[in-house]
Amino acid sequence: MIKAGIVGGTGYTGVELLRLLARHPEVDIVAITSRSEQGKSVAAMFPNLRGHLKLNFTAPDIQQLKSCDVVFFATPNGTAMKMVPELLAADVKVIDLAADFRLKDKHEWSKWYGMEHACPELLEEAVYGLPEMNRAAIAEARLVANPGCYPTAVQLGLLPLLENNLVDASHLIADAKSGVSGAGRSAAVGTLLCESSENFKAYAVPGHRHQPEIVQGLKNMTETPVGLTFVPHLTPMIRGIHATLYAPLTETGRDLQMIYTQRYAQEQFVDVLPEGGHPETRSVRGTNTVRIAVHQPQGGNIVVILSVIDNLVKGAAGQALQNMNIMCGLDESAGLGDIAVMP
Amino acid sequence: MIKAGIVGGTGYTGVELLRLLARHPEVDIVAITSRSEQGKSVAAMFPNLRGHLKLNFTAPDIQQLKSCDVVFFATPNGTAMKMVPELLAADVKVIDLAADFRLKDKHEWSKWYGMEHACPELLEEAVYGLPEMNRAAIAEARLVANPGCYPTAVQLGLLPLLENNLVDASHLIADAKSGVSGAGRSAAVGTLLCESSENFKAYAVPGHRHQPEIVQGLKNMTETPVGLTFVPHLTPMIRGIHATLYAPLTETGRDLQMIYTQRYAQEQFVDVLPEGGHPETRSVRGTNTVRIAVHQPQGGNIVVILSVIDNLVKGAAGQALQNMNIMCGLDESAGLGDIAVMP
Amino acid sequence: MIKAGIVGGTGYTGVELLRLLARHPEVDIVAITSRSEQGKSVAAMFPNLRGHLKLNFTAPDIQQLKSCDVVFFATPNGTAMKMVPELLAADVKVIDLAADFRLKDKHEWSKWYGMEHACPELLEEAVYGLPEMNRAAIAEARLVANPGCYPTAVQLGLLPLLENNLVDASHLIADAKSGVSGAGRSAAVGTLLCESSENFKAYAVPGHRHQPEIVQGLKNMTETPVGLTFVPHLTPMIRGIHATLYAPLTETGRDLQMIYTQRYAQEQFVDVLPEGGHPETRSVRGTNTVRIAVHQPQGGNIVVILSVIDNLVKGAAGQALQNMNIMCGLDESAGLGDIAVMP
Amino acid sequence: MIKAGIVGGTGYTGVELLRLLARHPEVDIVAITSRSEQGKSVAAMFPNLRGHLKLNFTAPDIQQLKSCDVVFFATPNGTAMKMVPELLAADVKVIDLAADFRLKDKHEWSKWYGMEHACPELLEEAVYGLPEMNRAAIAEARLVANPGCYPTAVQLGLLPLLENNLVDASHLIADAKSGVSGAGRSAAVGTLLCESSENFKAYAVPGHRHQPEIVQGLKNMTETPVGLTFVPHLTPMIRGIHATLYAPLTETGRDLQMIYTQRYAQEQFVDVLPEGGHPETRSVRGTNTVRIAVHQPQGGNIVVILSVIDNLVKGAAGQALQNMNIMCGLDESAGLGDIAVMP
Repeated sequence: MIKAGIVGGTGYTGVELLRLLARHPEVDIVAITSRSEQGKSVAAMFPNLRGHLKLNFTAPDIQQLKSCDVVFFATPNGTAMKMVPELLAADVKVIDLAADFRLKDKHEWSKWYGMEHACPELLEEAVYGLPEMNRAAIAEARLVANPGCYPTAVQLGLLPLLENNLVDASHLIADAKSGVSGAGRSAAVGTLLCESSENFKAYAVPGHRHQPEIVQGLKNMTETPVGLTFVPHLTPMIRGIHATLYAPLTETGRDLQMIYTQRYAQEQFVDVLPEGGHPETRSVRGTNTVRIAVHQPQGGNIVVILSVIDNLVKGAAGQALQNMNIMCGLDESAGLGDIAVMP
Repeated sequence: MIKAGIVGGTGYTGVELLRLLARHPEVDIVAITSRSEQGKSVAAMFPNLRGHLKLNFTAPDIQQLKSCDVVFFATPNGTAMKMVPELLAADVKVIDLAADFRLKDKHEWSKWYGMEHACPELLEEAVYGLPEMNRAAIAEARLVANPGCYPTAVQLGLLPLLENNLVDASHLIADAKSGVSGAGRSAAVGTLLCESSENFKAYAVPGHRHQPEIVQGLKNMTETPVGLTFVPHLTPMIRGIHATLYAPLTETGRDLQMIYTQRYAQEQFVDVLPEGGHPETRSVRGTNTVRIAVHQPQGGNIVVILSVIDNLVKGAAGQALQNMNIMCGLDESAGLGDIAVMP
Repeated sequence: MIKAGIVGGTGYTGVELLRLLARHPEVDIVAITSRSEQGKSVAAMFPNLRGHLKLNFTAPDIQQLKSCDVVFFATPNGTAMKMVPELLAADVKVIDLAADFRLKDKHEWSKWYGMEHACPELLEEAVYGLPEMNRAAIAEARLVANPGCYPTAVQLGLLPLLENNLVDASHLIADAKSGVSGAGRSAAVGTLLCESSENFKAYAVPGHRHQPEIVQGLKNMTETPVGLTFVPHLTPMIRGIHATLYAPLTETGRDLQMIYTQRYAQEQFVDVLPEGGHPETRSVRGTNTVRIAVHQPQGGNIVVILSVIDNLVKGAAGQALQNMNIMCGLDESAGLGDIAVMP
Repeated sequence: MIKAGIVGGTGYTGVELLRLLARHPEVDIVAITSRSEQGKSVAAMFPNLRGHLKLNFTAPDIQQLKSCDVVFFATPNGTAMKMVPELLAADVKVIDLAADFRLKDKHEWSKWYGMEHACPELLEEAVYGLPEMNRAAIAEARLVANPGCYPTAVQLGLLPLLENNLVDASHLIADAKSGVSGAGRSAAVGTLLCESSENFKAYAVPGHRHQPEIVQGLKNMTETPVGLTFVPHLTPMIRGIHATLYAPLTETGRDLQMIYTQRYAQEQFVDVLPEGGHPETRSVRGTNTVRIAVHQPQGGNIVVILSVIDNLVKGAAGQALQNMNIMCGLDESAGLGDIAVMP
């Protein structure tokens, strides 16, 4: 059994990790830390776990974490980078669900996250944990930067287009819609039910941290220049991301449907819908699946890709588990077999 | 492997049965019938099942159903009773998720369901499938009447009080709130999002079919007269029932919390919350669990029981699976281990 | 024109007062105070008011408030009582939307609100602002305690029964469901969309502050002993209260429907539905109307009353306006003519 | 007083027309027709109208309609065109809220609406009822084609850009999100609460009827070629449209914020937000206002316009009233002064 620790388990990615790990056949959760909730039963905070998990939050204890095989960070940005070097030195594998190791350029990172990076020397080593792009490197990695939720939906949506140089990558548009859980479990007026239900709005149009992360990823898919306009929106639902992606085709007559189907034929967590489909976020809720549809409206030269994920699963905890499975040589889908609850 | 057939698989209890059976370790689904959708892929109708179930709807075929070990009816009321006798004669176990076999009195049944019963001789034999009441009889049954959603929440909430004669059973009140999925998947104006979200209302206050079903069950728990006022309400959410139950105590000084805890100590699908708790419907969403809390506000003589279930799981498909497990001698919790997705 | 001031305008009752007062034909809003937001444009915080109200929040200034004809307190409990005596001394009429003057007994008040009352000598003078009960006294009042949201729905639902001694008032049950806006606009985890949508739960079952307020009011309606079990629930919607009220009839054969219809025939904000009706909260959203239906399920001896309001209008700001209209000798419905937006 | 008739009053645009007309100071509603509901009280179907409107549905009666000053059609597509010629001949002004007169080209119309047009000779005369574009023509019109909901949001969002030739109009993208009420009040599985809440999806990506309507309108704003990719999405809320519009700038250094502000300075129903704003659909719910924000993310060459409306008001009934006010020489904002209810 693999011994897993979770640092920072009181947010939505934390409880989702717990839900998934609690039923993983080859994992023992040995510690879940929370400074503010130490001593409290995890199931008292998250009643869905009653009967499934007997564990209390503990204060972060580096010695205990060093005894783990793998440690997940489900902490605010800027926390993992302070503890990761010591864990790596103790031969612990680390998966950071926050953004500390997602950008390769430390200046870019500082610009978007507003602080100095504590261990910039690890930025190059850290593997960006998008298995459909980087599976081999993840298998060898000590440190995995788990992708952001929007970046997961957008990159997997655009990957076959860019790999095959089918579009003008300098004029990409990603119009993305997220459920409110993307904003986390912190008390805030803007995400109260009374403020965010029966409402729809864009936010952060001038600039969002996931934009440089996506651009960095897209650049690895193609040799042509990349330009991306990224607009996120807040949708009145708990879970789900729907990315609507627009790109100008540079050649005509290619069978885009077949290109997508073939690219993802071996990917068990990517489901390309039949031609003409419209994926629904609810069809992936609680699961690690990405569903993608390919459209070319009225045969024009703009390709429209629809890409949906559960932001807390494939966009966070599920992908982290998938990465752990790969890093530890387990079946990649272990613990990730749930079917979405519908309706 | 147990061969299971489902008659009428296009409603919400049908898809929920499919979700649960698809991952049950000891069941093969051999047929799912729908006259209107025959030939259509199940996963085309319910995209959450894509990749998990390769099965098409077929027209009902009694010969095929006779080859099953167990047949579930997820049909409108009045359908199962026409096919059950032939299936029983072929040694098929039957679980009816509709109401055809829930009431023992054929006149009462006709009064509430508006038709003659097709096989009243089976009403006595049919076992009411509430395992926490009737486990032994279910294990021996050929025909199980799966309880209604409200009746499940209400009866399990009141059971310890009535078994122990702690309350005046002639003055019971059940104020019940249901998510909209309780109304089924039929197109209807009243359950459109635009009509039922941002809204709360009672319905069927003059009389609801679940009232006689609940009263019949309660009478089996106590020898004193039973009187029940039952008021259902429509709540703007998809899943969940919250029953708030009021009863006048006939004696004081009893430790109700302990009585509930002990009564359900061996029941793996009943979770009695610690004293002072308030169960949330979301904590059981997608699962077969009932969560119950016991209150005696301000030490008065009215006991208030809070009881929550997922109407489509413990209130329908999950309980049907639990009954199948018992009838077939399997582990009672097989295929029912999911943890609620939260948030 | 009446000069009105609002103390504490950043919560939901505050913005609702602004929405209603901004269109009231005989009111000028001269000040809206907020210590935390002073200087900020009201419309910047509440964009629905853009183009309708040019006003900035100001720090509370007792001299400015003294120049008003009427001052509304939309503040947390315990604030109004510190300023009211000085305002009354300056001949300003005061309407407190918080709970400072709702209970007559200062000990009871301290027990439920956890502090000493700052001006208990005013508790007797304060008029409980339920116009359908106390219209004449309100017309003469200097100080009105605007009722709580639950108490408005429950008292108006029970009034005809208790006034006419038709029920055993010692065994009343009020099962009440509220939209999330009842919890206010403060940042709190429990009222995040992700925590309170797709969920239903009871809360404060051991005891809620509105219970003694309701009981006090009911006692004024009848000479028989009053006993009330009150259970509030949180419903996944923004606005609306639905109270389901249960009472044992003490005599039979009375035409309850007619009694209700006649009692409220002259009340323009009380709408008794035709026999068999089920009022919906959305039908009163944004309006000052109470809708009530009277049921006697299956002709038994339990009467069931359904009573719905908008908790922020008839349950708060609208009723405050109604009280102001009465106190100032205006048409009681001035500024309160909106029709609910539906769907 | 203006005598108004409504043909087809049982849908969402119908009830919204009733809500607005019932309080319009200069309108008498003389008839509201519905073949299926004739004889039924309007307020029995729409309980928000109880106490505000005493009117029954009647069967359509051309003689009665001819006695009106203005007739609104809130009917399915293809109905108005059969009655309009006779009404015009009787000097009745007509406002069609359906699509019968929106497209100028009868072949294009037949292609998208799947039937022959019954009076193609009126297509040229009909005035497209977007007051901010066509106010003068509307004032003179006998027949107004009320714009679609998406087209209203998109055209008003793009108008200043196209009028000033600031963008390459051949590469426009409109990513639009609508509340579920846009799909109407018909019973349909896809718009049940259980299917459309907690879910987000695109639809009609291969082609939507509003695309040609928008393109026709945009062509009237500019002399350069127009190309538009239009993708509509279904959002889990009742009301509201949020259009996110993308266009490549053809020149740099222009003050877009000022251009928008000046263009709409005299438009009382268009509110341009201060720089950096993000309009929320709830801020216009129930009102006739369009709120628009202008962004140029990271100073790049893609301009992003955010445009929100209430699809049933500015996108349907409210704009129809605005058109009626203009056609009848009334104050353009008569009956349209509501403030959005928030939260």
